[in-house]
Amino acid sequence: MQKKELLYEGKAKKVYRTDDPGLYIVSYKDDATAFNGLKKGTIVGKGVVNNQMSNYMFRLLEKQGIPTHYVEELNERETAVKRVSIIPLEVIVRNKAAGSLSKRLGLPEGTGLKSPVLEFSYKNDELGDPMVNDYHILAVELATREELDQIAEMSLNINRLMVDFFKTVDVDLIDFKLEFGKTSDGEIILADEISPDTCRFWDGTTGEKLDKDRFRRDMGGVEEAYAEMMRRLGLK
Amino acid sequence: MQKKELLYEGKAKKVYRTDDPGLYIVSYKDDATAFNGLKKGTIVGKGVVNNQMSNYMFRLLEKQGIPTHYVEELNERETAVKRVSIIPLEVIVRNKAAGSLSKRLGLPEGTGLKSPVLEFSYKNDELGDPMVNDYHILAVELATREELDQIAEMSLNINRLMVDFFKTVDVDLIDFKLEFGKTSDGEIILADEISPDTCRFWDGTTGEKLDKDRFRRDMGGVEEAYAEMMRRLGLK
Ligand SMILES: Nc1ncnc2c1ncn2[C@@H]1O[C@H](COP(=O)(O)OP(=O)(O)O)[C@@H](O)[C@H]1O
Ligand SMILES: Nc1ncnc2c1ncn2[C@@H]1O[C@H](COP(=O)(O)OP(=O)(O)O)[C@@H](O)[C@H]1O
Ligand SMILES: [Mg+2]
Ligand SMILES: [Mg+2]
Repeated sequence: MQKKELLYEGKAKKVYRTDDPGLYIVSYKDDATAFNGLKKGTIVGKGVVNNQMSNYMFRLLEKQGIPTHYVEELNERETAVKRVSIIPLEVIVRNKAAGSLSKRLGLPEGTGLKSPVLEFSYKNDELGDPMVNDYHILAVELATREELDQIAEMSLNINRLMVDFFKTVDVDLIDFKLEFGKTSDGEIILADEISPDTCRFWDGTTGEKLDKDRFRRDMGGVEEAYAEMMRRLGLK
Repeated sequence: MQKKELLYEGKAKKVYRTDDPGLYIVSYKDDATAFNGLKKGTIVGKGVVNNQMSNYMFRLLEKQGIPTHYVEELNERETAVKRVSIIPLEVIVRNKAAGSLSKRLGLPEGTGLKSPVLEFSYKNDELGDPMVNDYHILAVELATREELDQIAEMSLNINRLMVDFFKTVDVDLIDFKLEFGKTSDGEIILADEISPDTCRFWDGTTGEKLDKDRFRRDMGGVEEAYAEMMRRLGLK
């Protein structure tokens, strides 16, 4: 498989075409953004962490029956993935209140929830990734009823698997963001990344934040937190 | 039935206890607010319009099988209603894009939707009535799954009835807000009001706004629009 031209550069990754029409190469950058691109910076080594951690998680989920875009890790920053057309929804799964949910409902960060919360955001930078509900999604045809039901079910399954896994490395999975895509034969699979950029990880004992909130909130120790998550996964 | 002490004064109505423990009296004010109370004013005669129009709509919906809190119009501003405990959700039903939905999805006002859109807001002034989805509602126990399903079904039924009715008076029902309450024996019924304060009405021919947007947007002709809606319903 040969790396061809750059197709798309996002905030955290570059996507390249390959000589195989079914495969892309994603290349993880150290660039960090927050608040819809208003805050910009660099987290040294982040691309390596996010690539290797995402691939670790995708392999783990695949073993438990979740179809993902993961194909093969090419080097420390680059991975071959199945080409999909991304469904323009960010799926947020929450186990405890934090971030925008804490603000929305007036709940202190860390407040437990009676049941996991799913949220959908319309992936659209100009609109600021607005929260949408099922009716919005159907009314403007971002996904069909069947796709939406399948995405919700997969997301809740992934949550159960991830919560259990992170517990074994003393990490409390507070919330995370997923993206799904459709392959050329219509299958919906998990795409994008699973990393400290897209998850809130709190140390299970001390509650210390081990994720991008350290960057968002200028808490310091950002690179150390990403490295600590790598150690917990036995990747370093 | 005797009017007793004031129990609660909201932005648009006062609610009084009566000597009947199952009944309240609502008294409609001319006070107008917008943008979560940031904009304040008076719409002369609004209380009379909203009382009489709400009652007209409640009677019409009751005839079509929708249970409502309406009991008896007492005078031009006051009505006896069944006492309920209000479910702290604003249910917004939308047929065309307008207001916050236009902003949220980047759709010009008046854009048609593939299917009606329901939105829930958590009725909480301090939090600014945030939009919530089913998962939020269940996770913080604002309603049960069964209540939520029943409210959604009733709201979509009410929408069908109201769209059809307003068409007969050459009014395009763009969107509206409902509140539901629970009676002492657990029945969920339609409560609050149905008025130009809580609905977007556009003239079916000219598209002219005949609702509170004239006040929100300083368009002038506010009292005239409320009066015109009364005329359409044959109430003046
Ligand atoms: N398997 C895939 N096929 C096609 N596109 C993908 C795949 N996985 C992720 N993407 C997309 O790659 C783009 C680049 O990622 P990223 O830099 O994280 O973008 P963003 O700035 O939107 O967060 C995103 O639009 C993401 O949806
Ligand atoms: N049948 C009812 N029983 C009890 N409360 C009601 C009933 N109908 C409406 N209410 C409540 O009366 C209050 C006063 O109405 P309003 O002035 O419109 O309040 P708000 O400022 O919340 O919009 C609201 O909290 C509304 O939910
Ligand atoms: Mg991204
Ligand atoms: Mg009100």
